[in-house]
Amino acid sequence: MTEHPFDAALALDPIADDAWHGRTSDAYWNMVGPFGGVVAAALFRAAQDHPLRRGDPVALTVNFCAALAKGAFAVVARPARTNRSTQHWTMEMSQGDGGAVATATALFGTRPDSFAHRLISPPAVPAFDMMPRTPTGGLGWTDRYDFRFVEGAIDWQGDKAAPGATRSVLWIRNDPPRSLDAVGLVALCDSFFGRILHLRKQMVPFGTVSMTAFFHATPADLAAVGDAAVLGVADSRVFDRGFHDQTAELWSADGRLLATSHQIVYYRDPGSDR
Amino acid sequence: MTEHPFDAALALDPIADDAWHGRTSDAYWNMVGPFGGVVAAALFRAAQDHPLRRGDPVALTVNFCAALAKGAFAVVARPARTNRSTQHWTMEMSQGDGGAVATATALFGTRPDSFAHRLISPPAVPAFDMMPRTPTGGLGWTDRYDFRFVEGAIDWQGDKAAPGATRSVLWIRNDPPRSLDAVGLVALCDSFFGRILHLRKQMVPFGTVSMTAFFHATPADLAAVGDAAVLGVADSRVFDRGFHDQTAELWSADGRLLATSHQIVYYRDPGSDR
Repeated sequence: MTEHPFDAALALDPIADDAWHGRTSDAYWNMVGPFGGVVAAALFRAAQDHPLRRGDPVALTVNFCAALAKGAFAVVARPARTNRSTQHWTMEMSQGDGGAVATATALFGTRPDSFAHRLISPPAVPAFDMMPRTPTGGLGWTDRYDFRFVEGAIDWQGDKAAPGATRSVLWIRNDPPRSLDAVGLVALCDSFFGRILHLRKQMVPFGTVSMTAFFHATPADLAAVGDAAVLGVADSRVFDRGFHDQTAELWSADGRLLATSHQIVYYRDPGSDR
Repeated sequence: MTEHPFDAALALDPIADDAWHGRTSDAYWNMVGPFGGVVAAALFRAAQDHPLRRGDPVALTVNFCAALAKGAFAVVARPARTNRSTQHWTMEMSQGDGGAVATATALFGTRPDSFAHRLISPPAVPAFDMMPRTPTGGLGWTDRYDFRFVEGAIDWQGDKAAPGATRSVLWIRNDPPRSLDAVGLVALCDSFFGRILHLRKQMVPFGTVSMTAFFHATPADLAAVGDAAVLGVADSRVFDRGFHDQTAELWSADGRLLATSHQIVYYRDPGSDR
């Protein structure tokens, strides 16, 4: 069986107890660097697959410090604190002599099957198979996902003087299909287009600078999803002086909230110099 | 003029280029450690007040790894990456030989006065002066804030078999009053009671394990608030297997969104052993 391109993109070779080498993947290339989702997933994977890791994923924050150049990068992951039921990790990705290209922290913990209460539900939508694939081609990483927008695709042809809807509801499935796991879920958390593009209906200089993901599903829950599509919901609260927030939910087709994510996204006016 | 207890709690003495000593403050003591808001604010302050810091606050993530004991702690803050318009920081707080008690990352950036778009509004509420102070006494840190719940105070006397409302709307003001700045805003982001208490209407073992704050206001915006109360809105999406999320908004009285925060909170069933 051929290795899935996502797993190939996340391949890490150990160079020390807490350090690994990886290489950027053309299959997940974005405009000026790799898709942030694979950067986040590689950092997360270094902690998750570390022999000292204890507990299930609870939270991850990744700060995207600079675009990676094509080629090799290094990842360091070390446990910052191990408690009885939680464990905190610190990670960093670097490339050449330029310093950090990404920093991250992660939290793992035991998840007793105790009291639960769910306050939100997924939107009612047509099934994945009922929807056409939304054309997004050309970038590399966007071809690695089968996006099917139910609501809030970018209206590239719309009137640029009027603000576009910032809320999107869409099915997302790996292409080729891949069974869901925590590293795959991390990448999905970053697979939503910057809301600034939906709002402005045109390309502008933008990029996620920090993303926090909270896990509401265990590895067993994710395995139960298999390689089926997941439902994503994304929206923003405010665009103000060069940065906008962005919150997303990822749902299984049978209505379990798998993860929530929160991003802060850098943007500039259309046509401006970064 | 006497130093405000918040500023006294955040006093940091340099011990090296990137390292400081501080001391816990009884004025902001919580049940088994300091109020997390002063821990977060001290970590943030170490980066913000560093001579190498460039740009306005954009994002902060703090991971609360362990309760601090009363006494001295050390803070390390170093720039991880400096770009033309953004700068990333990594911070860590430690105490004795036990390793990290908190880890953090922060993002600062230039905020050009460009395109803005606001999608949410503050709830319509009676003015701060029209509301009575909500009794919260006894803990130390809770006495340092004048909380005035408009909606969603903890219903300690309510029927424990029925879930309580998780959404709160409240005015919050420092006691004694203190002019708003970024460190004060960081602490306010952590001043919301864990939603699990609102839901269960009783004390349970709980604690925030990670908090991310996004700044939507500049230092000048915060200075304009002065020492007036700010309006807080907090709610959760899901409580599941020992962790719940919590999202909050902080508004100025004149309707500017100052910050949003996102927390993941550890909880156990009532009466359970941590």
